[in-house]
Amino acid sequence: MRAIQKKKRGELIVLSGPSGVGKSTVIAELLGARRDIHFSVSFTTRQPRTGEQDGVNYRFVSREEFERMIADGELLEFAEYVGNYYGTSLKVIREQLDRGVDVLLDIEVQGAAKVRERCPEAVLIFLIPPSIEELSRRLHRRNTDAEEVIQRRLEKARQECRESVNYDYLVVNDTVMDAAGEILSILQAEQCRTQKRIHLAQGITGPQDEEA
Amino acid sequence: MRAIQKKKRGELIVLSGPSGVGKSTVIAELLGARRDIHFSVSFTTRQPRTGEQDGVNYRFVSREEFERMIADGELLEFAEYVGNYYGTSLKVIREQLDRGVDVLLDIEVQGAAKVRERCPEAVLIFLIPPSIEELSRRLHRRNTDAEEVIQRRLEKARQECRESVNYDYLVVNDTVMDAAGEILSILQAEQCRTQKRIHLAQGITGPQDEEA
Repeated sequence: MRAIQKKKRGELIVLSGPSGVGKSTVIAELLGARRDIHFSVSFTTRQPRTGEQDGVNYRFVSREEFERMIADGELLEFAEYVGNYYGTSLKVIREQLDRGVDVLLDIEVQGAAKVRERCPEAVLIFLIPPSIEELSRRLHRRNTDAEEVIQRRLEKARQECRESVNYDYLVVNDTVMDAAGEILSILQAEQCRTQKRIHLAQGITGPQDEEA
Repeated sequence: MRAIQKKKRGELIVLSGPSGVGKSTVIAELLGARRDIHFSVSFTTRQPRTGEQDGVNYRFVSREEFERMIADGELLEFAEYVGNYYGTSLKVIREQLDRGVDVLLDIEVQGAAKVRERCPEAVLIFLIPPSIEELSRRLHRRNTDAEEVIQRRLEKARQECRESVNYDYLVVNDTVMDAAGEILSILQAEQCRTQKRIHLAQGITGPQDEEA
């Protein structure tokens, strides 16, 4: 009789983690398994580099358009770096969520704190390395940074991991498959949370049960 | 350097759901997939029936032993029915949890409320039918109850589903595989909750970081 919807609104998923933890590999695995997830791409006013595609690497907009977005409060966060703006559009995210699409946001700890503030229902996941020694090995293996830079990254990783207490979930990136698997489970479990499915119980008890 | 444990303490999992929802089939599927889960068996003072095994169907104890358990506050809940006691031992559950074993408890809504009170960290899952019409079909298909009994069961199911607001998760038993799959995801996600894994982050930042 009553139409029972399994899903009402998209889920906002925030993933943070220190440099070198392997976040982009985990995200690629995740998006391969869940092709319905919209990966949120940052807006920028800088020119596209060769090979960069609008909507894939960045959303490229004019300085005027970016400043309008700031003025209209559309941005969750933004920063100016070497004369160009970079930012995340909360408006775009909300439009996707309203359409029932799950949105994944790769954002650092300060940005995640702003998401928590403005979207309390967001699911915050922090990706940590198995150990600081393993993170050090991974940063050395990349072979792109000087020792001093690596040491600064490790110190920053320690600081960022302190912020993980403000996240809902901690996932250890031991292997990419395990980490992506845990995140997939978290997303499925979040769909089952009572407050998100209470309409299903009401489909049994009847929607007029206000005392429930 | 520091030993990082992936798991510290067992998880107490409570599963409730109305008669006819298919809970025992889902539990069998779940225990098949997660053989490390201890399924909590009720204590009783009644005599074993033919084929019943101690520790499988019930834990059979003497009336004296059961009354000692009541007196020592070892029972989460108990009831007397046709001259015999039936009850759930919180002591046994806690011993398993302390050993790091996950424990599954099949218990009705009043019992679940007591678990929440005495073990606030327990994960409460409520299994609901896809619709009241489908529950009615399932109860009729069993072909064991008179129509009047079925109608009483349906009314009781409606009442019990009202209590589902007090549960952490709602799982729809549409198909057994999907329902068991969702519960498995919930259990994996619960293992990733920050408060249960904060020692992993401390393994990165160092345990002396009290400000974190």
